[in-house]
Amino acid sequence: MFQDFKHVGDRPVAIQVKEYVKRLIIKGSLQSDQKLPSTREMSGLLKVSRNTVIAAYEGLEDDGFAYAIPGKGSYVAAMAGHVAADQGGAEGSFTWQIDWKARMNDYAVSAVELDRMKQGIRAPKGTISFTSIAPDEQLFDLGDVRRAFLDRMAIEGQMLLNYGYAKGYKPLIDYLMRYMENKGVDLSGKDMLITSGFTEGFDMVLSALRPSARRGAAICENPTHHTAIKNLKLQGFELTGIPMERDGIDVEQLEAVLQKQPTRFDLAYLTPSYHNPTGIVMSPAKRSAVMSLMTRYQIPVIEDGFNEELRYSGAHVAPLIATAGQGNGVIYIGSHSKVLFPGLRVGWVLGDRALIDHLESIKRARTIHTSTIDQSILYQYLLNGNFDKYVKKARMEYKRKYELTKASCETYLPETQLSGDGGLHLFLTFPSGVNTHRLLEACKEQGVIFTPGDRFFIQEGEGLNTLRLGFSRVTDEHIEQGIRIIGEQLTKFL
Amino acid sequence: MFQDFKHVGDRPVAIQVKEYVKRLIIKGSLQSDQKLPSTREMSGLLKVSRNTVIAAYEGLEDDGFAYAIPGKGSYVAAMAGHVAADQGGAEGSFTWQIDWKARMNDYAVSAVELDRMKQGIRAPKGTISFTSIAPDEQLFDLGDVRRAFLDRMAIEGQMLLNYGYAKGYKPLIDYLMRYMENKGVDLSGKDMLITSGFTEGFDMVLSALRPSARRGAAICENPTHHTAIKNLKLQGFELTGIPMERDGIDVEQLEAVLQKQPTRFDLAYLTPSYHNPTGIVMSPAKRSAVMSLMTRYQIPVIEDGFNEELRYSGAHVAPLIATAGQGNGVIYIGSHSKVLFPGLRVGWVLGDRALIDHLESIKRARTIHTSTIDQSILYQYLLNGNFDKYVKKARMEYKRKYELTKASCETYLPETQLSGDGGLHLFLTFPSGVNTHRLLEACKEQGVIFTPGDRFFIQEGEGLNTLRLGFSRVTDEHIEQGIRIIGEQLTKFL
Repeated sequence: MFQDFKHVGDRPVAIQVKEYVKRLIIKGSLQSDQKLPSTREMSGLLKVSRNTVIAAYEGLEDDGFAYAIPGKGSYVAAMAGHVAADQGGAEGSFTWQIDWKARMNDYAVSAVELDRMKQGIRAPKGTISFTSIAPDEQLFDLGDVRRAFLDRMAIEGQMLLNYGYAKGYKPLIDYLMRYMENKGVDLSGKDMLITSGFTEGFDMVLSALRPSARRGAAICENPTHHTAIKNLKLQGFELTGIPMERDGIDVEQLEAVLQKQPTRFDLAYLTPSYHNPTGIVMSPAKRSAVMSLMTRYQIPVIEDGFNEELRYSGAHVAPLIATAGQGNGVIYIGSHSKVLFPGLRVGWVLGDRALIDHLESIKRARTIHTSTIDQSILYQYLLNGNFDKYVKKARMEYKRKYELTKASCETYLPETQLSGDGGLHLFLTFPSGVNTHRLLEACKEQGVIFTPGDRFFIQEGEGLNTLRLGFSRVTDEHIEQGIRIIGEQLTKFL
Repeated sequence: MFQDFKHVGDRPVAIQVKEYVKRLIIKGSLQSDQKLPSTREMSGLLKVSRNTVIAAYEGLEDDGFAYAIPGKGSYVAAMAGHVAADQGGAEGSFTWQIDWKARMNDYAVSAVELDRMKQGIRAPKGTISFTSIAPDEQLFDLGDVRRAFLDRMAIEGQMLLNYGYAKGYKPLIDYLMRYMENKGVDLSGKDMLITSGFTEGFDMVLSALRPSARRGAAICENPTHHTAIKNLKLQGFELTGIPMERDGIDVEQLEAVLQKQPTRFDLAYLTPSYHNPTGIVMSPAKRSAVMSLMTRYQIPVIEDGFNEELRYSGAHVAPLIATAGQGNGVIYIGSHSKVLFPGLRVGWVLGDRALIDHLESIKRARTIHTSTIDQSILYQYLLNGNFDKYVKKARMEYKRKYELTKASCETYLPETQLSGDGGLHLFLTFPSGVNTHRLLEACKEQGVIFTPGDRFFIQEGEGLNTLRLGFSRVTDEHIEQGIRIIGEQLTKFL
């Protein structure tokens, strides 16, 4: 025994010795009340210093795995309640098996069925992938993030590590309220909740607005963000999709749907700023028209502020919540995660005070509060002015890639309808009859993948001739090369 | 105009100027196509450098709030879709009001009603408060946390800031799997999901196990953690509480309940290690007895690993999930947050692989993934061996406070039944007839507050003669003084 101890570099050796002995006890190789080798002996056996062994034995005692008899040595403590690995089958009395799959309810089953990540497109290394719309981490200014952390730590110290508030980190709320005010939002009667990213905010809002006694009904753009479709379906909403035009949702169709069933809808989910997947920015005229309809039919709007910050050019366009003035019909869900750092899970919900009060309790019941470290790093980073600097750089870089992607599409995919006014992706519509799942199969063999567009549509079978090209994490060379390959394969399907 | 600009210290001045001008535009003080003062002029007006103004104007252009005419100057861009604050009432066309309270569903209403924090005991500053069981932040080793962050940043760099995996940060999962194995858990057939603290894990497990077609039924200790009661109720479970004895749940009662309705229960929620609020550690004999019953009746167990790490002394007692050997009937939910840093929202669920697979999809639908920063700081902190060092210090300090609290209770509250084998709190039971809400009112006037115990009980009106004393954040002096005051007030009620 004790021959197979090996310690690894970057962890205190005494802890490694403690854990090693613990495992021998757990496995049953060391029995209750068995004497452990003396510290001098063990030091020789494991080839570590005697002080290390002394510290390890103390640790074993602290954790209840050993006891010391003064003048005699250390002994293995009795292991209460253990089923030793080698007798698990024999004793077996508690080792019953539950069929967990059979115990899962509809919600859990749907969560798996609707989980696109689990049906993700796998491709060998070296494949040119247009599937991601995550930011390019090469742009991240790590030094600024590190400084933000250290700055905040120096100011707040231990407080950052103890419990925070469900509503969020106060300095960040204040900052973001002002930030939204600077987008033209009238804050009177409104309040804000910090969430762990957009998704948590969206899911919580839906869980509060889902009717108790019947299925909910929601209006959305068609196509729209597939994660939003997933969450709406998971929360039991039936979706009515309104087609997209070049300048945003088709307002006439929207009106027709509302006229037909004026009291049917519980809410509308809209992404006016960088619609995902089409990349379309809703025109100011349409924003007014949409808000006017929503007002007439009294339908609450969930506004997805998705990548609003990445507009490359043009005049500032106010979000819907600003257009609503003192009205409280719009719930705005924002996040810097998508532009800035997705690893920091911070988003916010801005809306009517009574609504936020309910969401705060739901937040507390679900996750207590969002990571204070994340919130405080983001706050200090914003305060230090790094965000403005970063966005300037990011806009420039993504704009360049956007133009390259667009030009490559125009060269190699001449028959294709393009949409996307910026952001991190373009949306392509081929002549009907082209099936982008089959196109994907063909391209994959040539080392190129993308996201077929049908998953962004409400009804199965819609949008089979569409695809989304995410370019944020693809090099210039690969953008051109990848689109050329897609073009070559496409000719086989035309 | 421009007279009221004041810049604050710790934020780049150009950004402050940009935001200042933005607000003037938003408020309507600057109109569309109005010429902005020249950079030289503005520099004089605001008393900032000309370069600062140039940078601010550039920022306004980037954000679409201004445009430049070469050779002429900068102009205010048209504000599309804005309702200026001073005309909100007048235009008013979109400013409809929704009665959000009326739109809230049962879940949202219950979340508020069950939200104890909103009915919290408020007390003036200087009050001696025994209400908290959060760790004492004075014990936090900030330097070690800072180093863990910097170490991990140096190793992983930008990767830490981009999207992670729903399942969790791989090195942390590997570490915690090993950690659980060292507690005697047989990992075969099991898997782990990282969550944003215990609460998220618990809420997700319940949302997956809640029956689709009827209300759920759960067994739990009585009293038990009030947050757990809240989450169980919110997810629609009916609770059957089993009384506590000195060494844990009353096994005879448990058996009687199961015999009576052998197929009724969907799950049991148990906290064997540091039961909250009683502080009782379930004896090894009872652990076996409980597991034997759960096996016989095939009832899944959710094991709350609450503060297991804080045991002050005695032999190691295996968690229930270790007792189950290769069985998959126990779902263990752990968290270092309660002992270590609650501000870092990291917990884990360990259980059957098929179950974890479903929970992973639910996690993705709810919050995408837990903060990578939090996970990686925790991982590096653990790897560096800081946890063992910290727990040693924390155990010593809390043990001392525990003994002081216990001694003070024995001195000043001689007629009181005490429970609690350690942890961060003691649970007190007075002779029946004493109402701790009324006692609290009396004590509050003398500057002492605590948590009345009835909120930990399943049925309304139970446990009115009990209270929980959290001592982790109370000074030695205040512990003695506070308990003396409680004792003085108590005599009035006996």
